[in-house]
Amino acid sequence: MISLNQIMQARDRIFRSIVRTPVVSSDCLSDATGARVFLKLECLQRLNSFKIRGALNKGMLMTPEERSYGIVAASSGNYGAAVSYVAKLLGVPAHIFVPRGTPEVKTQKIRRYGAVLHPEGSEYDEVRSLAILHAKRSGKPFFDPASDEAASAGYGTIGLELLEDIPALDAVIVPVGGGGLITGIASAVRAIRPSIEVIGVQTEACPAMAAALSDNVFYEEYPAKPSICDAVLGGIGWLAYENAKECIDYVVVVPESKVKEAVCELLSRDKVVAEPSGALGVAYLLSSGDRFRGMNVALVISGGNIEFNLMREILNA
Amino acid sequence: MISLNQIMQARDRIFRSIVRTPVVSSDCLSDATGARVFLKLECLQRLNSFKIRGALNKGMLMTPEERSYGIVAASSGNYGAAVSYVAKLLGVPAHIFVPRGTPEVKTQKIRRYGAVLHPEGSEYDEVRSLAILHAKRSGKPFFDPASDEAASAGYGTIGLELLEDIPALDAVIVPVGGGGLITGIASAVRAIRPSIEVIGVQTEACPAMAAALSDNVFYEEYPAKPSICDAVLGGIGWLAYENAKECIDYVVVVPESKVKEAVCELLSRDKVVAEPSGALGVAYLLSSGDRFRGMNVALVISGGNIEFNLMREILNA
Repeated sequence: MISLNQIMQARDRIFRSIVRTPVVSSDCLSDATGARVFLKLECLQRLNSFKIRGALNKGMLMTPEERSYGIVAASSGNYGAAVSYVAKLLGVPAHIFVPRGTPEVKTQKIRRYGAVLHPEGSEYDEVRSLAILHAKRSGKPFFDPASDEAASAGYGTIGLELLEDIPALDAVIVPVGGGGLITGIASAVRAIRPSIEVIGVQTEACPAMAAALSDNVFYEEYPAKPSICDAVLGGIGWLAYENAKECIDYVVVVPESKVKEAVCELLSRDKVVAEPSGALGVAYLLSSGDRFRGMNVALVISGGNIEFNLMREILNA
Repeated sequence: MISLNQIMQARDRIFRSIVRTPVVSSDCLSDATGARVFLKLECLQRLNSFKIRGALNKGMLMTPEERSYGIVAASSGNYGAAVSYVAKLLGVPAHIFVPRGTPEVKTQKIRRYGAVLHPEGSEYDEVRSLAILHAKRSGKPFFDPASDEAASAGYGTIGLELLEDIPALDAVIVPVGGGGLITGIASAVRAIRPSIEVIGVQTEACPAMAAALSDNVFYEEYPAKPSICDAVLGGIGWLAYENAKECIDYVVVVPESKVKEAVCELLSRDKVVAEPSGALGVAYLLSSGDRFRGMNVALVISGGNIEFNLMREILNA
C-alpha cells in the first residue's frame, strides 16, 4: 500500500494547483438504492479528470537532471493531458503516446499545453510498449500512471478529501483501469478508517483487474473488446496489482449498456457530465439492489471528457 | 446595499447545510475572450440552484411564532424547491405557488420535500400576486426572494466565496431575474473590493431590470415573451431595485439564441450542466469581443435544472 505519509506529502505538494473537487449528494441514486449516495466530482478537476493529481505529484518530484531529459507517457488521453499540463508548468518537454482514434476532446487537451502527440498504436497496451521503447532509446523518464508510487499517492489525496467531506463514510466505489486510482484512494481511506469498503468497477469489455485478482495472475496486458469506456482499457500496473490484493474488497464488472444508462442518469438527474469510464460506479450502483441500503456510499466520478457526439447519442437513445 | 455584517452572519448560519460550490476555470471561454474566466458552479448547489442560500438564511431567522404559521412562496421553480427543502428542515408547512407549465424537473423537487404545490397562474407576476393574496388571507409569512434582506444576504455568501477562491478578481457577471442574487453578490464584493465590476445579464424576452435602471422606474411586474429562461421572467424586487442603483455597473440583454449556444458550449466544452437562465453570463461573454481581455472574470452559473428534452433539443440543434 501507499503510505499515509506519502499521500499527505502529495497533498501538500499539489493542492495549490488542483481543484478541491466538490462532493454532492445524489437524491435520485439515494432514492434508488436506500443508501446515502455521494458523488466525488473529479470530472470537474483541472482538465476534467483525476489524473492531474498523480502527474503533478510525480512531476514535482523530478530531479533537475530528470527534468532536463523531458517526459514520456502512454495514455488513453486523460493522463496524457495531465502530463502535458504538468510538463508545461515545470518547463519540461513531453512526448505523449496515445492510441489512434483517441477522442478529440482528449487529444486537444494534450496539444493545448504543448506536448508532442504520438498517435501510434491501435490500443493502449501496444501504445504503452511503444512509449516505453521510446523512453528507453531516448533516455527520458517514462511516467507510468498505474505502477508509480508518486502517481498513486497523488490519487490518494481524493481519499483524504472523501473522509473530510462525508461523515461516517461506509464504502467507496471507484472505476478501475490500470488500478492506480483505486489503490491510491484505498491506501488513504484504509489507513485512516480500515472498516471502509473499497469496491472497484470495470467494464465487461476489459475486466483486467477483476480477472487478475480472481486468477491470481498479473495481467500487464489484457485484450479489450470495443468499448465506450476508453479510459479504462488494457492491462493493469504491477504496483496497483500488488496493492489491490491488500486494500480492495472486490472488483465488479458491468455491461456497456449499463454504462450508457449511467451516463444518461448522471446528465439528466444529477446534472453531472461524466465520461463513460467515469460513470462506471453509477452503472454498478444502479444494479446493486439492496446491497448498500442504509450505508453512506461515495462514487468517484473520475472524468468528464466525453465526446459531444457520444453525449448526444446517449441522450437520444 | 446589504451590509457585510448581514452576509457574514448569513454564512455562519447556513454553511453547514449548503455546498461550498466549486470555482473552475474555463479554458475555452478564456481562449475565446482573452480573459481568465472562472465559473462559479451554483448549478451544483443543493437542489441545483443558488436559491437555498437565501431561503435557508431567511428560514433560520423565523421566530417560533412565524414558524407555527408556515411559509408561502411564489416561484418559477428553483426558489420553491429551496423553500420546500428548508421548510422540511425546520418542520414548517409550506405552500409554493408556481406558474402552470413549470418544468417537471423543478416541480418534482418542490414535491419531494413535502410542500403543497399550487400551479395556479400563467406567468410569474400573476403567480406572485396569487401567493401574496394567499399569504395575507391565511396569515402566513410570504417569502420573497428579490425583496428580502435575509434572502439577499444569503445570496451574498457567493460573493465571499468568489473573493476567497479567485485571486485579483476584476469582474463578476450574474444572471438577473428579480435581482436578489446580483445585489446580494454585489453587496459582498463591493464592500470588500469596491473596484470589482458587477454586471447583470437578462434575456431579451424579459429585460425588467435593464429597463428599470434605464427608465428609472420600478417595474414590479414586467411582460415576458416566450423564453427558455424560465427562472428569470417577470418583474423585479423593490429592495433589489434600490440596491441595484448603488452596486451594479450595468445590465446587458442577450438574445435567446445566444442562451442556447451558451448552454451547449457549457455542456460540450466545460462539461457543465446549466439551465438556460444559469447560462446567461456565458451568453453575454461569448459576444463581448475584447471587453474583458486581460481581466479575471467570474461567471455565476446560477442553476442546473434544465429539462431533459430541452437539453437534448439544444444538443441536437
